[in-house]
Amino acid sequence: MHRTHTCGELRLENANQEVTLSGWVQRIRDKGGLIWIDLRDRYGITQLLIEEDRTSDEVVKAARHIGREFVIKVKGTVIERSSKNPNIPTGEIEIDLNNIEVLNSSKTPPFTIEDKTDGGDELRMKYRYLDLRRQPLRRNLELRNRLSIETRKYLDNEKFFEIETPYLIKSTPEGARDFVVPSRMNEGQFYALPQSPQTFKQLLMVAGYDRYYQLVKCFRDEDLRADRQPEFTQIDCEMAFVEQDDILNTFEGLVKYLFKTVKNIDIAKLPVMDYADAMKYYGSDKPDIRFGMKFVELNDLAQNKGFAIFDSAELVVGINVEGCADYSRKQLDKLTDFVRKPQIGAKGMVYVKYNEDGSFKSSVDKFYSQDDLNVWADKFGSKPGDLMLILSGDANKVRKQLNELRLEMGNQLGLRKSDVFAPLWVVDFPLLEWDEETNRFHAMHHPFTSPKAEDIKLLDEKPAEVRANAYDLVINGVEIGGGSIRIHDRDLQKLMFKHLGFTDEEAQDQFGFLMNAFEFGAPPHGGIALGFDRLVALFGGSDSIRDYIAFPKNNAGRDVMIDSPSVIAQSQLDELSLNIKKKI
Amino acid sequence: MHRTHTCGELRLENANQEVTLSGWVQRIRDKGGLIWIDLRDRYGITQLLIEEDRTSDEVVKAARHIGREFVIKVKGTVIERSSKNPNIPTGEIEIDLNNIEVLNSSKTPPFTIEDKTDGGDELRMKYRYLDLRRQPLRRNLELRNRLSIETRKYLDNEKFFEIETPYLIKSTPEGARDFVVPSRMNEGQFYALPQSPQTFKQLLMVAGYDRYYQLVKCFRDEDLRADRQPEFTQIDCEMAFVEQDDILNTFEGLVKYLFKTVKNIDIAKLPVMDYADAMKYYGSDKPDIRFGMKFVELNDLAQNKGFAIFDSAELVVGINVEGCADYSRKQLDKLTDFVRKPQIGAKGMVYVKYNEDGSFKSSVDKFYSQDDLNVWADKFGSKPGDLMLILSGDANKVRKQLNELRLEMGNQLGLRKSDVFAPLWVVDFPLLEWDEETNRFHAMHHPFTSPKAEDIKLLDEKPAEVRANAYDLVINGVEIGGGSIRIHDRDLQKLMFKHLGFTDEEAQDQFGFLMNAFEFGAPPHGGIALGFDRLVALFGGSDSIRDYIAFPKNNAGRDVMIDSPSVIAQSQLDELSLNIKKKI
Repeated sequence: MHRTHTCGELRLENANQEVTLSGWVQRIRDKGGLIWIDLRDRYGITQLLIEEDRTSDEVVKAARHIGREFVIKVKGTVIERSSKNPNIPTGEIEIDLNNIEVLNSSKTPPFTIEDKTDGGDELRMKYRYLDLRRQPLRRNLELRNRLSIETRKYLDNEKFFEIETPYLIKSTPEGARDFVVPSRMNEGQFYALPQSPQTFKQLLMVAGYDRYYQLVKCFRDEDLRADRQPEFTQIDCEMAFVEQDDILNTFEGLVKYLFKTVKNIDIAKLPVMDYADAMKYYGSDKPDIRFGMKFVELNDLAQNKGFAIFDSAELVVGINVEGCADYSRKQLDKLTDFVRKPQIGAKGMVYVKYNEDGSFKSSVDKFYSQDDLNVWADKFGSKPGDLMLILSGDANKVRKQLNELRLEMGNQLGLRKSDVFAPLWVVDFPLLEWDEETNRFHAMHHPFTSPKAEDIKLLDEKPAEVRANAYDLVINGVEIGGGSIRIHDRDLQKLMFKHLGFTDEEAQDQFGFLMNAFEFGAPPHGGIALGFDRLVALFGGSDSIRDYIAFPKNNAGRDVMIDSPSVIAQSQLDELSLNIKKKI
Repeated sequence: MHRTHTCGELRLENANQEVTLSGWVQRIRDKGGLIWIDLRDRYGITQLLIEEDRTSDEVVKAARHIGREFVIKVKGTVIERSSKNPNIPTGEIEIDLNNIEVLNSSKTPPFTIEDKTDGGDELRMKYRYLDLRRQPLRRNLELRNRLSIETRKYLDNEKFFEIETPYLIKSTPEGARDFVVPSRMNEGQFYALPQSPQTFKQLLMVAGYDRYYQLVKCFRDEDLRADRQPEFTQIDCEMAFVEQDDILNTFEGLVKYLFKTVKNIDIAKLPVMDYADAMKYYGSDKPDIRFGMKFVELNDLAQNKGFAIFDSAELVVGINVEGCADYSRKQLDKLTDFVRKPQIGAKGMVYVKYNEDGSFKSSVDKFYSQDDLNVWADKFGSKPGDLMLILSGDANKVRKQLNELRLEMGNQLGLRKSDVFAPLWVVDFPLLEWDEETNRFHAMHHPFTSPKAEDIKLLDEKPAEVRANAYDLVINGVEIGGGSIRIHDRDLQKLMFKHLGFTDEEAQDQFGFLMNAFEFGAPPHGGIALGFDRLVALFGGSDSIRDYIAFPKNNAGRDVMIDSPSVIAQSQLDELSLNIKKKI
């Protein structure tokens, strides 16, 4: 071992010990007679001291030849520092050197290896191995490791088996695009990389494994939006003989356990909000409940008073923003601009200031009296000093718009703190979703999601109202995971396929394999999958998953560090019996 | 939850409790007035009792309508059995039923779900989800889960971080074939699936992560031999600032920890055998040291006595087989046939029986006196009653042949017990390996493996004699893993490439990426990778890894259960800009 201790280990009680340390040179300060070197490794930083008068010429000379990021191995005596650094655990000591060995030199890194680096995004991606030396990234990967360890500990304790499912599977025509893998031994045929182990985990339930989990890479060849990765990691789980509450309880337990063990935060019982309420009160199926500003609907109070925009709207709905009655004209105009941005798409915004003196000032004073506005304020629960912001229009659209406005106000008022965590369950999702393109209903989750027993009767008449045994785990406005109780009954499955517009042959063709397995005694079962990258980022207080993945791809799906994907040799193509089509 | 207890949980102390169980019907015995059902789940089997006189007609009728592998949910009272079954933990009780609900029916499975099944290999692969219901496979996957949990526990405790490396990486022209993944977004370009995370784990050392591990899937598009899988799992590790002994000690610790915690077996300090000795005494770099029969070389004693076959041989070498002097002519002929098999390739075998009366009987009595044979016996350490078996020829070939014979004798004499474990380290592998095809030296491990410092001077003159800082973990004659200390010094790396016949451009082209990273301060580092599938199989006492993988491929690389690989839609090919070449 090239060291007796790590760079994060030595304390005052080690004084006078002879030690060997190895690590990277973080910083050198040469004050003529005195040279200090900060030596860094994964565990911390230790200060090295060279005193020209006392230290051998050889060591002094060596010290003057090393540079940033050199790898050195030093020997010396632990001594008490005269000027202590209370900011680092090793800050009370330094090493009085008597030997330096350069294990490896280093070119000057293209950016500084500091918490705040001067390197741009592109450069840091290219030299990811240098960027990974920085403490913030090191802490992110350490957090990721800790979360995976604790996740496994909890699930193991709950009698889950981790079972590896295959990566070389079969392409299915549905949904997002598969990555495919040509088979050399089976000419013209392809494997596919899994978008999720869905089929296999259900098969494991058929096989009687009762409780399965896996931290598993999944692959999706999508056009990448910001912060999507073509390969991502899931905590994938499935349980047999359970009902929805059993799954919610088990994974609520996981959430609480992780927050407690990893961040020492006690999480109270998770609220359970049904989808309809989430949409009605937050305009989103992933509400951020770290703060209030629940939607208040005003149709009964605001319509038929002569204001045409409200009168013609399907929904008039607003939020009460506490303490913002003093917003300036300019601030309000900026908010109006915000909701009018094309990606939000509102036509305009109505405001009502509830002044400290009890009077109201609104952008619709022409249509509504002070009394009218007072009644609105009652419904909003407004107090003097508050600001009411109101949008109107098509119900679905206006809810989405108001959701954006609510989140923006949360941001502006600092209500979305990254160290506050507000998880909840959103349940009772609609089973079916109308697809404008194909003009028919699609399964909102997947075709094996079970409908609520009491809603099955609605399948024919009001399919859009049928609720599913489907649930999402939402934390701080982010969908961390979701799942469902699956259909294990053949007749119900057939009914579902009928309503999804599948012929028997289509159903057999696409899902026959799993359906055949279900002929041999499938237990009631259900599961959940949590996005591990996103969970780690959330725990780290960030919403960029890329900073929590050791070697991520960029937004074009490229690994710029290794320069991949890349062309392959013609011989490889030949072996695979493939040609690359020339663009015409 | 569709149960109050699992089928493996109830004991006599639960007597009189009302319980609900769910599971699969393992067996039904209908003795007219009495019906017994064995109900099975992952946790065990519980016996259900229906007494026609006492149980409701409805329940009796339901019981008579269920069949093997139906999924049922039952309610009843725990009662003491009159005739107890000491072979199962629940054998003292049964459930006096008062309700049966069929959760799902089942077609008759194509083979019996019993420890010894009547299903053939093909059929069981096709219906893997049914085969997985059998206890032996269930136990295998449970063992796998346990080993992965304990491996992580040990490594976490040793301050290793588990860090996920990417699956979509870059194809390299060296070595075994990569599986490639066409990129839709980067036309004509491909990712490759990793054969191992070698590059990335070395980069993590450059990045200062100090101790890395990962249980990770790796992929190799090889022509499959029996018991190879195109995707397999590795325990992949790397450590910085270490020397060879540090790695051996750390992973010796892992081996001992796993045997102790998972099998309650104490493993003594692992022997360390150098490669030269392994070849000399066992004819194999993965010696099975559960038993003796070390090779004894006889050139000095057996040559120049007129026996032309020995005289012309480069090596005369044999083993002493204890207590087999009474082998019959027929048994000896069978051994001769064995070594003459084409895959072993010996021309013949010489035997010497050391009879109980002290005399010798050999197949070469014509050339050697009793005194000669007595001297041989001394060298072999033979006792009266033992049998010496001797082969001769080209040294390398004859050692391989004698290795096969030794293993065969170990098998015949029951010396290779699957519940005895004899791990060891084989070290000091040659750095270079002569390649007959290309007529040049190749790196035996990979080009980053470091030579022993004291052997570097031999690189020019005697390259075949240069030993590497490379090591294998061998258990019971199986190579479980291997690794090396890597070269971190640029000059040494250049020297190595020169000796491997790489031009600077070739080296840069194939390994430039990692070499560039090494310019920025690479620490001394080394690592190891253990074959997890094989380790689990070994712990399970089997040498078939397929039985320890939930969903394996067959020898043609096919998953016959999901029928993959398969053709994909033309639209998918179009999106990937690919054509399948027609065979001419």
